[in-house]
Amino acid sequence: MNVEFINPFLSATIGVLKTMAFTEVTAGKPFLKNDKISRGDVSGVVGITGPPNGSMSLTFSKECIMEIVSNMLGETFQEVTDDIKDAVGELSNMISGTARNDLGNKGYSFKTSIPTVVSGPGHEIRHMCKAPTIAIPFNTKAGPFVVEISFENGTPTKG
Amino acid sequence: MNVEFINPFLSATIGVLKTMAFTEVTAGKPFLKNDKISRGDVSGVVGITGPPNGSMSLTFSKECIMEIVSNMLGETFQEVTDDIKDAVGELSNMISGTARNDLGNKGYSFKTSIPTVVSGPGHEIRHMCKAPTIAIPFNTKAGPFVVEISFENGTPTKG
Repeated sequence: MNVEFINPFLSATIGVLKTMAFTEVTAGKPFLKNDKISRGDVSGVVGITGPPNGSMSLTFSKECIMEIVSNMLGETFQEVTDDIKDAVGELSNMISGTARNDLGNKGYSFKTSIPTVVSGPGHEIRHMCKAPTIAIPFNTKAGPFVVEISFENGTPTKG
Repeated sequence: MNVEFINPFLSATIGVLKTMAFTEVTAGKPFLKNDKISRGDVSGVVGITGPPNGSMSLTFSKECIMEIVSNMLGETFQEVTDDIKDAVGELSNMISGTARNDLGNKGYSFKTSIPTVVSGPGHEIRHMCKAPTIAIPFNTKAGPFVVEISFENGTPTKG
């Protein structure tokens, strides 16, 4: 696993949640997973094109995302509303864009798509790449969430 | 709505399902929808990068996708298994790739990401574009499914 490539996603997530959502998150140790699956209640999915092509997802439990968006919008949520789904799209866009720019400065060049937001209790997100997915676990006061990045040929090289 | 741009997605869906899954599908009339939401049990999501950036989704009911993948793999399914999810990834990849190549020949240039497959009863897929989503409804013996395409600035122009 290429740490130089993973760290921009990690710091973009911490930075965007702090700046946009006034939420302090702590990152756990990134790891490779072979099952390429995450489960949650609300997810943001962003397509990546290079080469290599790939995908990125942010997957939250209901409790975790309600707390984050409550901080972000300054109102309390009791359920997953359209405002919460829009906020997940916004956060996905900003995190993928920040990581992409940071990686561009380091010599890794790729593009990111418009986000798609998935909602539904206990849904499963499956990245369709052959290589293992890189998972970055995060923790908040309202519980954990995960950022996953998957590339068709594993961790990209510069170019 | 630019029909020259929509038709390749429509014919790619019919062609790929016929060739890969031995399933005859009929297309309804494509339409613009402002809510940018589809609901189903299994979806394939593909990111699009241009400019313009966008996203594409295929959303199936459980009954519809079990029938399609039964035809495709020659075995009967009683539930949504990993084989079905993998098949949705494969179909999403082939449909987006076929449409992309066809549009490339017509002068529309964009890239498509690796698919992400979403599963979970009654989940919602929300395209995070400002412009309306283009929905193409399809029908099969086992019920309807929908292909949605969304671009940040509406239907793309050549370039």
